[in-house]
Amino acid sequence: MATIEVRPDGYNYVFSSHLEPKARVKQGDDVFIYTDDAAESRIQSKTDYPKKVLSTVKFLNPQTGPIYVEGAEPGDTLAVSIKGIEYTRDFAFSAFAEFFGGLSSDPLTPLLQDPLPEHVWIWKLVDDGAAFYEEELDIKIPSRPFLGTFAVAPDLEAISSLAPGPFGGNMDVPDVRPGNTIYLPVFNPGALFFTGDCHGSQGQGELCGFALEITAKSHLVFNVIKGKSIDQPRIESPDKIMCVGSARPMEDAARMANCELIKWMVADYGFTWGEAYELLTQVGGLYVGNMVDTFYSLVASVEKKYLKRCGLKK
Amino acid sequence: MATIEVRPDGYNYVFSSHLEPKARVKQGDDVFIYTDDAAESRIQSKTDYPKKVLSTVKFLNPQTGPIYVEGAEPGDTLAVSIKGIEYTRDFAFSAFAEFFGGLSSDPLTPLLQDPLPEHVWIWKLVDDGAAFYEEELDIKIPSRPFLGTFAVAPDLEAISSLAPGPFGGNMDVPDVRPGNTIYLPVFNPGALFFTGDCHGSQGQGELCGFALEITAKSHLVFNVIKGKSIDQPRIESPDKIMCVGSARPMEDAARMANCELIKWMVADYGFTWGEAYELLTQVGGLYVGNMVDTFYSLVASVEKKYLKRCGLKK
Amino acid sequence: MATIEVRPDGYNYVFSSHLEPKARVKQGDDVFIYTDDAAESRIQSKTDYPKKVLSTVKFLNPQTGPIYVEGAEPGDTLAVSIKGIEYTRDFAFSAFAEFFGGLSSDPLTPLLQDPLPEHVWIWKLVDDGAAFYEEELDIKIPSRPFLGTFAVAPDLEAISSLAPGPFGGNMDVPDVRPGNTIYLPVFNPGALFFTGDCHGSQGQGELCGFALEITAKSHLVFNVIKGKSIDQPRIESPDKIMCVGSARPMEDAARMANCELIKWMVADYGFTWGEAYELLTQVGGLYVGNMVDTFYSLVASVEKKYLKRCGLKK
Amino acid sequence: MATIEVRPDGYNYVFSSHLEPKARVKQGDDVFIYTDDAAESRIQSKTDYPKKVLSTVKFLNPQTGPIYVEGAEPGDTLAVSIKGIEYTRDFAFSAFAEFFGGLSSDPLTPLLQDPLPEHVWIWKLVDDGAAFYEEELDIKIPSRPFLGTFAVAPDLEAISSLAPGPFGGNMDVPDVRPGNTIYLPVFNPGALFFTGDCHGSQGQGELCGFALEITAKSHLVFNVIKGKSIDQPRIESPDKIMCVGSARPMEDAARMANCELIKWMVADYGFTWGEAYELLTQVGGLYVGNMVDTFYSLVASVEKKYLKRCGLKK
Repeated sequence: MATIEVRPDGYNYVFSSHLEPKARVKQGDDVFIYTDDAAESRIQSKTDYPKKVLSTVKFLNPQTGPIYVEGAEPGDTLAVSIKGIEYTRDFAFSAFAEFFGGLSSDPLTPLLQDPLPEHVWIWKLVDDGAAFYEEELDIKIPSRPFLGTFAVAPDLEAISSLAPGPFGGNMDVPDVRPGNTIYLPVFNPGALFFTGDCHGSQGQGELCGFALEITAKSHLVFNVIKGKSIDQPRIESPDKIMCVGSARPMEDAARMANCELIKWMVADYGFTWGEAYELLTQVGGLYVGNMVDTFYSLVASVEKKYLKRCGLKK
Repeated sequence: MATIEVRPDGYNYVFSSHLEPKARVKQGDDVFIYTDDAAESRIQSKTDYPKKVLSTVKFLNPQTGPIYVEGAEPGDTLAVSIKGIEYTRDFAFSAFAEFFGGLSSDPLTPLLQDPLPEHVWIWKLVDDGAAFYEEELDIKIPSRPFLGTFAVAPDLEAISSLAPGPFGGNMDVPDVRPGNTIYLPVFNPGALFFTGDCHGSQGQGELCGFALEITAKSHLVFNVIKGKSIDQPRIESPDKIMCVGSARPMEDAARMANCELIKWMVADYGFTWGEAYELLTQVGGLYVGNMVDTFYSLVASVEKKYLKRCGLKK
Repeated sequence: MATIEVRPDGYNYVFSSHLEPKARVKQGDDVFIYTDDAAESRIQSKTDYPKKVLSTVKFLNPQTGPIYVEGAEPGDTLAVSIKGIEYTRDFAFSAFAEFFGGLSSDPLTPLLQDPLPEHVWIWKLVDDGAAFYEEELDIKIPSRPFLGTFAVAPDLEAISSLAPGPFGGNMDVPDVRPGNTIYLPVFNPGALFFTGDCHGSQGQGELCGFALEITAKSHLVFNVIKGKSIDQPRIESPDKIMCVGSARPMEDAARMANCELIKWMVADYGFTWGEAYELLTQVGGLYVGNMVDTFYSLVASVEKKYLKRCGLKK
Repeated sequence: MATIEVRPDGYNYVFSSHLEPKARVKQGDDVFIYTDDAAESRIQSKTDYPKKVLSTVKFLNPQTGPIYVEGAEPGDTLAVSIKGIEYTRDFAFSAFAEFFGGLSSDPLTPLLQDPLPEHVWIWKLVDDGAAFYEEELDIKIPSRPFLGTFAVAPDLEAISSLAPGPFGGNMDVPDVRPGNTIYLPVFNPGALFFTGDCHGSQGQGELCGFALEITAKSHLVFNVIKGKSIDQPRIESPDKIMCVGSARPMEDAARMANCELIKWMVADYGFTWGEAYELLTQVGGLYVGNMVDTFYSLVASVEKKYLKRCGLKK
């Protein structure tokens, strides 16, 4: 198994099969990927207002990739284990931008009201990297890094790096974090993996639209599950299985995530659809990953301990 | 402080100010309330199919109440502490009913497809009441009781006990559980409190629409916060504050819950709206209580430990 | 057939079966009903801003009714023919109110942005009542009166007069106009009819939330279709049949309206559901009545001329 | 002005700037474009069930294009006048496909219910091309052709030809018909125009998802409005101006269409936003183009006669 470092010489802003691979990796390789923040490092201080520093920028959310994974073919599933995430600078930013965010009108929910005022928040890494502190707020919160964007190239289409979908993408789901494995459907030879948008922390919903945006170096290991096809992104942690649905309105994302989770329980855990539907009713989890992106991402989950039969049946 | 038992001689199916109070209680009284299950105990075995046993029934979700709380006046807030919930029988039911549930079309999302097949699940209380076991599934899950319906009478209207709203109602939010205090706006003299629909366990979303439906005796204590007015139901646990938004589509429930939580942080915790919006972005919680009722209920939350300033500001 | 005039001595603000009938009428009677405008005549000039004149008012959209229709029983359908609408004053108002309207955030879609500025528009009746003219706009539009609110009392519940639903209510659908017959399901003895909220004109969607609000005297004739039960309001014009669905999100209202229209075509016009689904795909109508009320109302329609078979089948 | 015929030697299934132009045209040229039907002519008889004939097909909705329009630059607006549409065969098909259509669950609104049964409808062109007749239905309806898909290449992305959006696309809006001019924003040099998916007739909503699908030859004339930038597709008929919003949920499409129409009235007709908002409230139109595609398309409109001031202001 090789160790491979992917330092991008330029970023991409679409998930597409028409881009030149930035690297080629084998299954099991230790791959270290450098990613820029969602605003391409243009916001560094409280006065770097989004309108000022981003108005000349055509695209946001720069992606490192595509990375070609040897052996991946359409119809397979790509399994990506996140071994670790290190920050590559000592602060994260968050911001309120005009006509953006979960409690603002925006181009997808346009209204006639004036925008909210812009504001920039600078969260400094403190306590030897264990926490972030924002001085204006005078509040400290734990560091909990994850990758906001995690994708493969879709089939034929080239999709904006701001969008989540069946290919993964800009899901902004905090469970895409170290210790977990993310499963994505493969649509193209080599899978063509992209990542970016590291968050130092994020609440469920990513309310204002900018979490703790930070640059990072992530350690990933890729594997390919041959001949296994999935419909939506899946996540496995040591104690849970989870599925992501990305759609609008939000109830469609909830339906999508739960239908995919039922399919998983049926295919791999010996459930009928009815048994799975019943069990999720009683012990399933369902949280909002983001309520700010072009599609909302919801995560349906179940703890693995409930997927085992007791053996008490007469 | 008196001890008062409310054993209903009949149930109500609307939250309304026009109903005769079943009991009058004082603030601080220990009130023990008996509640029937959501199907009024008509489903007791695997062959009690909903269509058969509920087709002659006009209304579902029987409520115990109204309970008149002395001293509550319009514009106040009712604080209800849940001291405990005891089951009053040894099993809970769940069921798949035709054209009902989060992964089925229903009268509010009507489609032309045939209904899902009916099914009844009987979950027996085992392990000295610590768990439920369903034999067909051969699966055991922990007992985690809460009250699915928790309401005051609205202003002027009489609302079906199947509906959640600003008055509380059929929220199906698992945090309405022992150890927590629920805050509801008061619209009428005496607040006129209703409860019912105890669940022995429920996943986030209440996917098939019937959680572990069970009869119960709940221990509640009522208090009135004079002159304080809230817009949506609020919940306080030892370590979190939470707000419930009930609406369709689901994103409107998410907006409602988060706006209410920001108002709470501004009014009681010394935040500006911008500070609250930013903090929730990084550490807020947002889960789906139900995705099956007449309105979806979402819960926005934040841990109290994050609501304190560090005192590090220069 | 008698002639009956209903001049209310007070208004109601809920559709409810617990209210005393204001009048009792027989089928076929000529009933003339006086209605106030949606703001109870409190807005009469450009400076009667909603916040100022409505802030002391607890309820909006005053209703005349209930009117008891002899012979109507639960399970029947009430058919109401609108013979004519006369205005009872010489102007209508429209207004922008804070946090209200289709292009503003509101309590059901709450956001953090400031409200739009208030504004009042006074439309004078001109051209012998054939048109309305607004001087600030310097624009004249034709008079096209209809009744925004048209309801029966629901079953058990008491619903705000601001809400539309299966019982009719505040649908704000321009086809509730002279020349048409509106069908409503009967839930209570006497049907218990309510109306109000006359509009001198209204675009599809009722965009800002206040159409041409005006007082009126309407001529209605009631009939009862015994033993026929419908699920949603229906409208018949000389050349079309139409169904109203009221729901959020808007696609659920569209599904509801079309499903009801298919049921109608199957029950009364000899179609299978598949034939009806196909025909509506090619020639159905689907417009937005309101996008501002507590539920959106959409109208699905088909021209009667398409409901006849050609007789060309071999 | 030249006459140019575009007979595609192969179709495209994405709107993309990376495809080789099929033709280059000048402003004012008479361009005649041949298009296949949405199922690429695979459904020709009642037994060509979608699952059977489309299961081996990877992409649907074949597009003719891109067509490079000389002089169009990013930031301009492309104005396309539809001079005429001729059918190139004597029948249209419609069909019910599994998990597709406005009254069925589908991959974007997934549920657990079984699919609706498949069915194919063959509508023969009769009465010298003035009408379509379906023998099983024994119903005849008028021929009213329009182009379901009408697009320019978006910026950077490559979007499935099944999707509508700001670039136009698969809007399925019946007003994209002969006699009208359609305005689209230009994102790339040459605009890169695509069209396809001719419908011989379609109701509002395109309920089952397949309108009268037919092959056609359309006569278009392109013009470029230099330096004028629009946000959503616009349509001009002899007596109306209209804007299309494509989004989910449907209310967001309604907001988008109306906001764009207000911008148009402000920019070109001398209205303030408040005047436009008020006028649309009273006389605006708002219908559903499609309720079946990846985004719903709604059309907001106003008659030109209302856009003129009376000159009566004192």
